[in-house]
Amino acid sequence: MITNPAIVFIGFMGAGKSTALAAAHDAGLVVTEADELMERELGAPIADFFEREGEEAFRAREAEVLGALLEQTDGGAIALGGGSVLSERVRAALDRHLVVWLKVGPAEAWRRVGGGDRPLARDQRDFYALLEERTPVYESVADAIVPSGEESLSLDAEERSLKRVLPWVRHLPKLPAGTRMLWAHSAGGSYPVYVGRGMLDPEWWPLSSRGFCVTDTAVGALYADRIRASGTRVEVAPGEAAKTMAEAERVLRELARAGMTREDHVVALGGGVVGDLAGFCAHVYQRGVPVVQVPTTLVAQVDSAYGGKTGVDLPEGKNYAGAYHLPAAVLCDTSTLASLPHEDLAAGFVEALKTGLLAGGMLWERVRTIEVLDPNDLDDIVFACARHKCEVVAVDERDSGWRATLNLGHTVGHAIETASGYIRYRHGEAIGLGLLAALRLSDAPGLRDEVEGILRRLGLPTTLDPAVEVDEVLGALQRDKKRTADGVGFVLLSNPGFPRIGQILAAAKVEAAVKELYER
Amino acid sequence: MITNPAIVFIGFMGAGKSTALAAAHDAGLVVTEADELMERELGAPIADFFEREGEEAFRAREAEVLGALLEQTDGGAIALGGGSVLSERVRAALDRHLVVWLKVGPAEAWRRVGGGDRPLARDQRDFYALLEERTPVYESVADAIVPSGEESLSLDAEERSLKRVLPWVRHLPKLPAGTRMLWAHSAGGSYPVYVGRGMLDPEWWPLSSRGFCVTDTAVGALYADRIRASGTRVEVAPGEAAKTMAEAERVLRELARAGMTREDHVVALGGGVVGDLAGFCAHVYQRGVPVVQVPTTLVAQVDSAYGGKTGVDLPEGKNYAGAYHLPAAVLCDTSTLASLPHEDLAAGFVEALKTGLLAGGMLWERVRTIEVLDPNDLDDIVFACARHKCEVVAVDERDSGWRATLNLGHTVGHAIETASGYIRYRHGEAIGLGLLAALRLSDAPGLRDEVEGILRRLGLPTTLDPAVEVDEVLGALQRDKKRTADGVGFVLLSNPGFPRIGQILAAAKVEAAVKELYER
Repeated sequence: MITNPAIVFIGFMGAGKSTALAAAHDAGLVVTEADELMERELGAPIADFFEREGEEAFRAREAEVLGALLEQTDGGAIALGGGSVLSERVRAALDRHLVVWLKVGPAEAWRRVGGGDRPLARDQRDFYALLEERTPVYESVADAIVPSGEESLSLDAEERSLKRVLPWVRHLPKLPAGTRMLWAHSAGGSYPVYVGRGMLDPEWWPLSSRGFCVTDTAVGALYADRIRASGTRVEVAPGEAAKTMAEAERVLRELARAGMTREDHVVALGGGVVGDLAGFCAHVYQRGVPVVQVPTTLVAQVDSAYGGKTGVDLPEGKNYAGAYHLPAAVLCDTSTLASLPHEDLAAGFVEALKTGLLAGGMLWERVRTIEVLDPNDLDDIVFACARHKCEVVAVDERDSGWRATLNLGHTVGHAIETASGYIRYRHGEAIGLGLLAALRLSDAPGLRDEVEGILRRLGLPTTLDPAVEVDEVLGALQRDKKRTADGVGFVLLSNPGFPRIGQILAAAKVEAAVKELYER
Repeated sequence: MITNPAIVFIGFMGAGKSTALAAAHDAGLVVTEADELMERELGAPIADFFEREGEEAFRAREAEVLGALLEQTDGGAIALGGGSVLSERVRAALDRHLVVWLKVGPAEAWRRVGGGDRPLARDQRDFYALLEERTPVYESVADAIVPSGEESLSLDAEERSLKRVLPWVRHLPKLPAGTRMLWAHSAGGSYPVYVGRGMLDPEWWPLSSRGFCVTDTAVGALYADRIRASGTRVEVAPGEAAKTMAEAERVLRELARAGMTREDHVVALGGGVVGDLAGFCAHVYQRGVPVVQVPTTLVAQVDSAYGGKTGVDLPEGKNYAGAYHLPAAVLCDTSTLASLPHEDLAAGFVEALKTGLLAGGMLWERVRTIEVLDPNDLDDIVFACARHKCEVVAVDERDSGWRATLNLGHTVGHAIETASGYIRYRHGEAIGLGLLAALRLSDAPGLRDEVEGILRRLGLPTTLDPAVEVDEVLGALQRDKKRTADGVGFVLLSNPGFPRIGQILAAAKVEAAVKELYER
């Protein structure tokens, strides 16, 4: 009986499928290169057959040969040719396997194989169009997405890097059906992100060392028993008020008294506050232990759990004390969203809205058309937002460039939070107001009105409470972390998908945009 | 008139002198390769002349040609042949230049040039012996020491890395005569260490951004006006009691209120406590700003200012909250040692003693023969200790292996500090007691007695105050950060220069060694 899934690498030409196969071979798996198999079957090089018989004839044979291969194969690893997923039979046969999409950008793919002897890699414009056309197909069958780095690695380094991914892919069958994995990597390291429903399970855990759970009292009561964290649990009060140096110290001391060593790890179970606080504690505890992020709120699942920004607030400013500390893994169980009050879900959705504005395309279409928030219907949005965030962090972990786009709406939003003592508004609510200010500053009135409409539809505030003093907001803006000698650099956006960073604006214009928030 | 010094690269075969010259050329300097000049003068390849006329004849011609070159040259950069510093005339002529010793280990040098056509690189044993023989000569003329990395870099990468060194070497003429530079590099980055007398000078500063000085009230009063730190100054109380999360928060808040941005930097002016605290604050302030370490105590100058370990204490353990944050530069002005009370100087000397034990050789001879501590006569010891520390960190920044040797004496020493609330003993005094315990655990009674004699001679404690409870010390040992599931790994040493790390010992043996400290 055939029972074991194979690891099947799919992706465009130049995505590194052969390198991944070499890594799998090195890891002890029986490997099959589909293109080689095809050439044996055809009795000729693929390019020759293609030339002679045309693409259609080739695809027909490919569907037959690879369909049969995938239906019969037991375990091991297979690298499929770039176009083979176009076959319905192949796609159906992939269902029982672990499909790993090696995702490569058009420029890097062209650099690797463009202009060579592959029949479909001769004209750059056609090549780019083909990649764009295939992308949704790869996406629809992938269980795991592994982006190739932006920087070209040596083949050796790429193989080593892909080899690190394999054990994490092989965890997938232990997780609930439908769980997807995303491989996040940036300058500081790489880690797996799992997104699925009902994956919190005391029987399964990604790390073998002892986990010490840091959570808040509300989330802890619901989920702490559903994860395998063998060390002591440390709880903080729910809400932004826990993000202080004093609370960080208390958590660190509790971990110390519980005997946590450098070989153990922290589990950050909760929303953005817990993720930031616990991640910060993991970073500084004995100069650093790993952290597994288990986000349970929408804001954490779509945004804050990824990318390694951690920290606590000072009275002088939000996240004024912090560090970069990439997670060892992120377990994003979307079934936890059902326990959130609607207000928290709505506030969290603002980060998805922001991500949609930044990403444009399909994600923007999805978020702009949301009428009612159904916590059981957000999986695709969560996964898409996680992907966008991780892709941005991949090219700029340390916030020196493109990562700054993620601050869209956050400059004014943070100032509102600081000015209102982190109490009056949920984080997402403040960011929603910040988005309105940013779109006003972007001179994009149509988009601003659309976003205001979405916020209103979800019951989110669209005007600023007069009890929050305008001078306090403007003062907090002056102390923004992103401030340089030139002033505060804003992220602006006129069209979804096209943010602009580092925009220095006249003080009067900023003041007007903030004041406008009181007026509507 | 000839006024400008040249940058002169010296070093053994394979040290990378030609690569350095390429970097200098790239940086716009006029460059001269001495070996090429020699071959033009000799009218033959060096190897041929060597073969025909012998080494003595070659050295005579070399002294003449390169002596004249160095006497007449005006600016630019020169790479000297490996043996040319053997000439007295060459050494004398080097005096007015900036001499950069590219330091390479024997194995790496042999890997690069061994067995090739160089006359002195044919037999490996002779090659190693020659390197050992030349080392003190290079050392005696070097203004700056730039170690080649342990890992082999590509030539391109090595050239880029050497190019980063040049601006820092060119700072040297602005500093007092006799100032030496050491290039520290490790996985996390590289930075210059300057060691000299009287280099604190409000006219000169290594970074161009605004510096915010963090110091203690005692050191601040003496030296804060002598450095160029244009931002606000933040002061803490002197002593280990300042190394708390609460003080870190206070410092961070003062920096925030003073308007420090991410483009500014922190200046850590003081001893080990200030270096650790200010370095930690720099690491977390807005997720990280650079820090310039300006150590003013012996313990900081020989040890703690280098290598990037920062942190504060928790009541549960020393340095329990911290991070790795490499300095942007270290300015080590040994003239500040004259202002230290004898007790502080003596306590600081314990770290030099430890380093001598670890390094063995010349440094151990220097520290074991000290009769009286003269703050004006410690420059060579400070520089040698800085070199040892930086070399250890270079191969193991994150404390996973060899860097652990630096904890010799610190396991019991930290436990004594923790048990006595960081008040009863100076850090160095506690480490001195820890060294005695470590040498007892190493079954090295002769060495233990010698170290005890040195401590006594310098007026340092050699027995533990009975007011410090033995159970508290043993309890603190149980919570040592280096503890793993196997127990606490000790650093042991029977012969100077040969430490052994990760030694797990029976609890009874450890207890006996601690108890013995009360008995003598």
